[in-house]
Amino acid sequence: MSSYVEQSAVTVVGLGPMGRALASAFLDAGVRTTVWNRTPGRDTELIARGALGARTVEEAVAASPLTVVCVVNYDASDAVLRPDAVTAALKGRTLVNLSADIPDRARDTARWAAEQGIAYLDGAIMSPTTTIGTPQGVFLHSGPAELYERHRPVLDALGGSHTYLGEDIGRAAAYDIALLDIFWTAMTGYMHALAVAKAEGITARELAPFAEGIGAIMAPVFAETAGEVDDATFSGEGNPISSAASTMAHVIHTSEAHGIEAGVMRAAEGLARRVIAEGHGADGATRMVELLSRR
Amino acid sequence: MSSYVEQSAVTVVGLGPMGRALASAFLDAGVRTTVWNRTPGRDTELIARGALGARTVEEAVAASPLTVVCVVNYDASDAVLRPDAVTAALKGRTLVNLSADIPDRARDTARWAAEQGIAYLDGAIMSPTTTIGTPQGVFLHSGPAELYERHRPVLDALGGSHTYLGEDIGRAAAYDIALLDIFWTAMTGYMHALAVAKAEGITARELAPFAEGIGAIMAPVFAETAGEVDDATFSGEGNPISSAASTMAHVIHTSEAHGIEAGVMRAAEGLARRVIAEGHGADGATRMVELLSRR
Repeated sequence: MSSYVEQSAVTVVGLGPMGRALASAFLDAGVRTTVWNRTPGRDTELIARGALGARTVEEAVAASPLTVVCVVNYDASDAVLRPDAVTAALKGRTLVNLSADIPDRARDTARWAAEQGIAYLDGAIMSPTTTIGTPQGVFLHSGPAELYERHRPVLDALGGSHTYLGEDIGRAAAYDIALLDIFWTAMTGYMHALAVAKAEGITARELAPFAEGIGAIMAPVFAETAGEVDDATFSGEGNPISSAASTMAHVIHTSEAHGIEAGVMRAAEGLARRVIAEGHGADGATRMVELLSRR
Repeated sequence: MSSYVEQSAVTVVGLGPMGRALASAFLDAGVRTTVWNRTPGRDTELIARGALGARTVEEAVAASPLTVVCVVNYDASDAVLRPDAVTAALKGRTLVNLSADIPDRARDTARWAAEQGIAYLDGAIMSPTTTIGTPQGVFLHSGPAELYERHRPVLDALGGSHTYLGEDIGRAAAYDIALLDIFWTAMTGYMHALAVAKAEGITARELAPFAEGIGAIMAPVFAETAGEVDDATFSGEGNPISSAASTMAHVIHTSEAHGIEAGVMRAAEGLARRVIAEGHGADGATRMVELLSRR
């Protein structure tokens, strides 16, 4: 490594499936891109398509004014970025961490970056690798507004929709966590439903078209109930949580009668029963938010 | 009550919100309809629109060859239908129970109906009251095929899509339970996500558009993963359950750091951890179905 001469507009650190998708989208958009991955060999195809390789991560981050890191979590990004040589190379440059983790890790990284003279933005990718570089990509960003504005042209080259969520550096991760909470709870519910269906002689392919119908009504239900929560009305629009609790009990009974544990639904029913025990059985399921938020 | 002379094509027993929607749709479709409800006064508006009232439930069921019952559950429908006078009036006629309950209650009702000489179909309504009489209504039916075919013209008058699921009388209820399993698990996940978001300073209205995005991707994900379950490949298409478990741990950590219990996600994570402990961490979340189904 001779001297730090910037040779590219962006550096992508981490070439797992998502990192490769990001680098690939930058190349497709004509953005000069340097790539690096801890395990060698992941850069071969990208270099063949015009990306610049780097022998070390410090050489990689020094090659661009902006480094986008996308690794498995913040333990992994700390391991890559916090050695002295890398920190020194990042000084005066901008780092965007698109790895997934909890909001506090983004806040911790922001403190470290400020101490080291590194400009820092945090972000989250809310759509699968296949959407990167297409209009279906969904990116969330948080951190200093002027920093986001400065790097927006390069980030926009990734395609898709980019939403700036504000100065709180943990905000993108907080949205990410909340949305993944919905996704993985729903997915686990689907897995459980498929087990119950199977015990009743219904195949996954038989249930799937109707499950798709349930999926399709979730989006409008999510939108319709949000206002009840913000306004603390919890009205339920004629769907009382007492009915929901009865339905949940039916699910548990049917599941356990087949010897299929129903721990997830038992936990959900427990929340509903506590709302009812507090005298709010005529309210909507949204009353659960108030119960959970109480400290 | 003088004699049992049929005066209408269908009788609707139970005039809660769904029962009233059913009766209203029949009237709109020009089907001569008799209505009855345990609590008096619920029939007033329907009678003003042309429905026939009845002094007793036996008079109501005797007025039509087909009775559709829609009450809160099968305890309620048993209480209405199993007194001797009502059973006698139903003899030789057809009963369709659209109340929601577990599959075994439908099977029990079928045994009782067979003993009493009552023709019996079971069904489930998978869409809200507002969809009844519109193309968005979703009805599932199970029971004797020739019985379904015979009454199909009247049932079709309710509008929407009607799917006949086969001779197993419990089949409609089994689909219902599986689909409600998905719905209420997902809704509880959304409520939890809103509590976590709130603790992070994000309002429900701010999260909702992104939550809608998650809802919108659930439907295709449900469709794509069904085949993995039926074919027992559990491949996960590059989304290993080990990653899902890490994400679930992030959700739990963020939630509990705010003092928000995470019992539902803890139960979900427990399933994922068991799959991983059995050596299937590289498989997809669909491997949970196999774990849950094992006895």
